[in-house]
Amino acid sequence: MSEIKAYGAKESKADLKQMTIERREVKDNDVKIKITYCGVCHSDIHQVRNDWGNSKYPVVPGHEIIGRVVEVGKNVTNFKKDQLVGVGCMVDSCQECSACKDDLEQFCENGMVATYNGKDEHLGGHTFGGYSETIVVKKDFVLTIPENLDEKAVAPLLCAGITTYSPIRHWNVKKGDKVGVIGLGGLGHMGIKFADALGSHVVMITTSPEKAEDAKRLGADEVLISKDEEAMKKHANSFDFLLNTVPVKHDINPYLTLLKRDSTMVLVGAIEPLEPMHGGNLIMGRKRVAGSLIGGIKETQEMLDFCGKHNVVSDVEMIDIQHINEAYDRVTNSDVKYRFVIDMESLRK
Amino acid sequence: MSEIKAYGAKESKADLKQMTIERREVKDNDVKIKITYCGVCHSDIHQVRNDWGNSKYPVVPGHEIIGRVVEVGKNVTNFKKDQLVGVGCMVDSCQECSACKDDLEQFCENGMVATYNGKDEHLGGHTFGGYSETIVVKKDFVLTIPENLDEKAVAPLLCAGITTYSPIRHWNVKKGDKVGVIGLGGLGHMGIKFADALGSHVVMITTSPEKAEDAKRLGADEVLISKDEEAMKKHANSFDFLLNTVPVKHDINPYLTLLKRDSTMVLVGAIEPLEPMHGGNLIMGRKRVAGSLIGGIKETQEMLDFCGKHNVVSDVEMIDIQHINEAYDRVTNSDVKYRFVIDMESLRK
Repeated sequence: MSEIKAYGAKESKADLKQMTIERREVKDNDVKIKITYCGVCHSDIHQVRNDWGNSKYPVVPGHEIIGRVVEVGKNVTNFKKDQLVGVGCMVDSCQECSACKDDLEQFCENGMVATYNGKDEHLGGHTFGGYSETIVVKKDFVLTIPENLDEKAVAPLLCAGITTYSPIRHWNVKKGDKVGVIGLGGLGHMGIKFADALGSHVVMITTSPEKAEDAKRLGADEVLISKDEEAMKKHANSFDFLLNTVPVKHDINPYLTLLKRDSTMVLVGAIEPLEPMHGGNLIMGRKRVAGSLIGGIKETQEMLDFCGKHNVVSDVEMIDIQHINEAYDRVTNSDVKYRFVIDMESLRK
Repeated sequence: MSEIKAYGAKESKADLKQMTIERREVKDNDVKIKITYCGVCHSDIHQVRNDWGNSKYPVVPGHEIIGRVVEVGKNVTNFKKDQLVGVGCMVDSCQECSACKDDLEQFCENGMVATYNGKDEHLGGHTFGGYSETIVVKKDFVLTIPENLDEKAVAPLLCAGITTYSPIRHWNVKKGDKVGVIGLGGLGHMGIKFADALGSHVVMITTSPEKAEDAKRLGADEVLISKDEEAMKKHANSFDFLLNTVPVKHDINPYLTLLKRDSTMVLVGAIEPLEPMHGGNLIMGRKRVAGSLIGGIKETQEMLDFCGKHNVVSDVEMIDIQHINEAYDRVTNSDVKYRFVIDMESLRK
């Protein structure tokens, strides 16, 4: 067991401050990582503020982790010292249930272990995330990062990236498909990049006309302002796939009218009750609405390799850990393009 | 043009009374049918009472039509005089759009012509349904009824039957699947019969414990009382498919928790806003909710042939047309097992 510096919240709605946490020693199947960068995910804020009512304090957030291997256990052959690696939203699962066997550890029937605020079976208590100097993770949950990518900008791929890549792949988005990405934030901007990299016709769907220019820079072919009823009518029944990244309660009915017959809108953001859905919007056209949660480890590696090949990374704004509370307020106000990443060197000063 | 007797409503919320309507003469591609039986669908009541705000008066309802051919046009080779035939919810469509070409005329992009309250391109005005002595229908929208079935009990297959058969087939329900049918009415009782005939493990899901015995008689292997929280928990994450036949606004969240990962609940009844759906109920387990609307003509014929082979018909209660207003009140009070069928001979008295 080793004591390390970390940044976290000691109680609900508290500011994040420097604290000391314990990390386990490296066991036979473990990889110890010196964290270089950690992305700031909206769910970090939800957990720190106990918005979902399941937070455990102290909370050390962070599940978009990039770093270098500093030590490996004796059974670890696929990672070596100094290698660039990543850790996402999960650090363990039962690896035996049908979901795990299907490479969908995020749906582990015995409960996946979240990177922070999960159950820590090694030290007891709960897990601590990436706003810290180091992390020790079972090898099966460590990702290989393509060395050609800008590692700072890779961090958000571990959550925002896989959260959008997974449904786009699972619902088989392909070249020429008309794909709508609803909401331009951390998730939405990755959705545009992936759909564009796959050759689909990407329509950014937003309530904010001022986002149009940036959406096009990111790869959108068109921008549809969802408050413009005439424009919405023109696009009715025309989309092969909709990726809905809106992170809060909203009305999905206008978006359902955009779908082609037999097509699907996937929710990846709103883990809360939505406005009432009209059954007729699904019945007319045999339409579907579905959800998707991050992605399994195998698919996360596939996504990283895809990003290496297509040179896809996140648009990031770098911060020192000392400015994390300001960053949280700015994320809450949608004032970031499009993901904050903490330079973890600042913690070591 | 010929004048015939019919039964319908002259204005909103009015009682149905005998009236006279016009039917077109038989054209080259038409089949003229003497109606022997007509089922009473809940949507007949919605239309008569203008619940959906799109009714046109006078309304002559009825889209579960059984009868015998009395005359065919010169281009009609697949139907002959005295043959037992049926007509469902549609009497025409453009037959050229991509939906029609996919044998999904119910989603015709130029608008299918409903059997009643649709646009009548032959006589002008709107179409009149099956609560009448005869009907003249384009041959492509006439179904062949297997002669081995009880024709009275076949009538509801034309709407209640295809509405439940189509999603069960489209989502590939198969032997051994655990299938939940939510709501035991006209649609639900057909859902049980089809899922049972396909060899699936059928669970009737209802708020009413008193329906258990009848559900088992119809083919359900188990009955789950949705108000019993403990029982609902035992069945959590275990269903391969859910057919939701509830015809009114309701809370779908408890049902979504029953679905297995990657499984679908299909709405066929509630053409209205539902209670707020929690996004997390889709996101956790990559679950889906979809809608389905009757079925195309090809699939309706397939369903009828399936029923002929497996001896599947509806449970019906016969009425004379003179008792239609009483029957409507009883349907509204869920007091029918499970479908009223009008003996149309009563109109000719």
